[in-house]
Amino acid sequence: MNRADVEGKIVFFNRPMQADLISTFEAYGGCVDQRYDGAREAAKLGAVGTIVRSMNLRLDDLPHTGAMSYGNTPVNVRIPSAAISTNDAERLSGILKIDPKVKFYFKQNCKQLKDVQSYNVIGQITGSQYPNEIIVVGGHLDSWDLGDGSHDDGAGCVQSMDVLRLLKETGVRPKRTIRVVLFMNEENGLRGGRKYAEIAKRKGEKHIFALESDSGGFTPRGFSFDGPDYKINQILNWKPLFEPYLIHYFKKGGSGADIGPLKNKNLVLAGLRPDSQRYFDHHHAANDTFDAVNKRELELGAATMTALIYLIDKYGFNSIEQKNKIKD
Amino acid sequence: MNRADVEGKIVFFNRPMQADLISTFEAYGGCVDQRYDGAREAAKLGAVGTIVRSMNLRLDDLPHTGAMSYGNTPVNVRIPSAAISTNDAERLSGILKIDPKVKFYFKQNCKQLKDVQSYNVIGQITGSQYPNEIIVVGGHLDSWDLGDGSHDDGAGCVQSMDVLRLLKETGVRPKRTIRVVLFMNEENGLRGGRKYAEIAKRKGEKHIFALESDSGGFTPRGFSFDGPDYKINQILNWKPLFEPYLIHYFKKGGSGADIGPLKNKNLVLAGLRPDSQRYFDHHHAANDTFDAVNKRELELGAATMTALIYLIDKYGFNSIEQKNKIKD
Repeated sequence: MNRADVEGKIVFFNRPMQADLISTFEAYGGCVDQRYDGAREAAKLGAVGTIVRSMNLRLDDLPHTGAMSYGNTPVNVRIPSAAISTNDAERLSGILKIDPKVKFYFKQNCKQLKDVQSYNVIGQITGSQYPNEIIVVGGHLDSWDLGDGSHDDGAGCVQSMDVLRLLKETGVRPKRTIRVVLFMNEENGLRGGRKYAEIAKRKGEKHIFALESDSGGFTPRGFSFDGPDYKINQILNWKPLFEPYLIHYFKKGGSGADIGPLKNKNLVLAGLRPDSQRYFDHHHAANDTFDAVNKRELELGAATMTALIYLIDKYGFNSIEQKNKIKD
Repeated sequence: MNRADVEGKIVFFNRPMQADLISTFEAYGGCVDQRYDGAREAAKLGAVGTIVRSMNLRLDDLPHTGAMSYGNTPVNVRIPSAAISTNDAERLSGILKIDPKVKFYFKQNCKQLKDVQSYNVIGQITGSQYPNEIIVVGGHLDSWDLGDGSHDDGAGCVQSMDVLRLLKETGVRPKRTIRVVLFMNEENGLRGGRKYAEIAKRKGEKHIFALESDSGGFTPRGFSFDGPDYKINQILNWKPLFEPYLIHYFKKGGSGADIGPLKNKNLVLAGLRPDSQRYFDHHHAANDTFDAVNKRELELGAATMTALIYLIDKYGFNSIEQKNKIKD
């Protein structure tokens, strides 16, 4: 973009999600700058507004919302920004080819309300042998207003609670403390996750593992892990236990936004990796609703999470001292 | 069952699909005898009708139809048989617990019409180097009457045709003949598949590989293969080429009903293995409709099939002579 092209105009960001990436999250990551930074960047060059193609691989009529930031742009020079559906983006693009001087009118009624007090929701089974060693499993409670947030992240909340239920139902008495945390405010600043980590640190709690489910309630494919290699390698050894259930994906990578603030050099963070193909059909849109969640897929995710939590609880991690001893 | 229990009664088959099998096809296989053989077996013991719980892992209100057989039971002692939805099966089971002598009334208007002439639909790209070596890819055209047969097997037909389109679009000129066959009458006797094999044999056609997609248009997970081990092992060596696209499942196993009649000791038969978790939500029911097919999942299946066909075409199979030479 340069000033001459955009000054006094509405900037239209229309770069589609890259369909040939098998991970739709990677495609999202390569695209979401248009929504997040677009208005800030366009305002710098004198634009009067921005319109963004929804982050959606499908062609449909649903606008997808999501976080955006003005950074430190002064309030009086902030410009309005809105997402339009993929069908509308195609339409607008077509119209612009015919008439590059087309007028586009949009009106927004958004306003920023004052913060209100809110809470994380926490429940746990206290460990029978090592109650001070904490394994966290969680998702986030908040969602965007368009749908009801069933995949993002009602599914993760239900699955996290289901981990405790499944352990109880199968008669497993965990040695370590298994704590479910339903985080507040993931979508709007991560304050639940930050507060949780802050309090955990203040209390000197020892977290050994944290697992987040925040990628939708679809058929589970595996996990990604973040943490010290020697601990991740210990987990990778369990991969053959999961393969008969068609859980094949065990890779180093990201974990989850809410558990991110817990990160330290000893802790292993993990994210459930469900099949991602349908996730962005629903993400932050009016069709992220309960009927779009398949019960069996959701339950398989919960069962897969429970199996991993069970193994972590049962075997714990070799300490760095043990690890070095083995090396010596 | 014994005669004293069922004589003069309607027999209710209510064994649910086994939810703890990760392959829903395996759960189906362990259940479908109730629908297929139930009426024949019950009639032998003097029952006057059978009601079958639908082959569906979900609880919903949709009856699922499908093939059944009276075997050689004489026409005059054949008894009516109907499937009811899983919700209705639960309800009926509950009512029977309260009142084991409950009366159940059902009426059917089914009749067997005369056969009509019908056809397989065939298209191909003739091979540039080995036109007489035929690679078949197909699905079946017919479907049950309740829905429109989108997953079973509209998806497989579209994907099979898409293999040719993708080869053309990517500029691949196949060395061998790639033939798409849309088989007729899979659901009602497999006569399209049988006729195709019969004509292929009569013409002395040399088929080297046949791939069927008849497990729904869901995210592809891999393939199963049937044929000589040394050829299957050659294919298994290609597995790492597929893993970056999250295609992990390469196993010896079944292939597809329509290509089954082609089986001989040299031919490799294969089946696309999509994620099976949602398949029986729709199978043979009124909700096997176009809106239940996700475009991206469908296309990923077609792309996965094309990749395998491409490799088979490019490298062919070692002949048994070559194979023995290597062994010697």
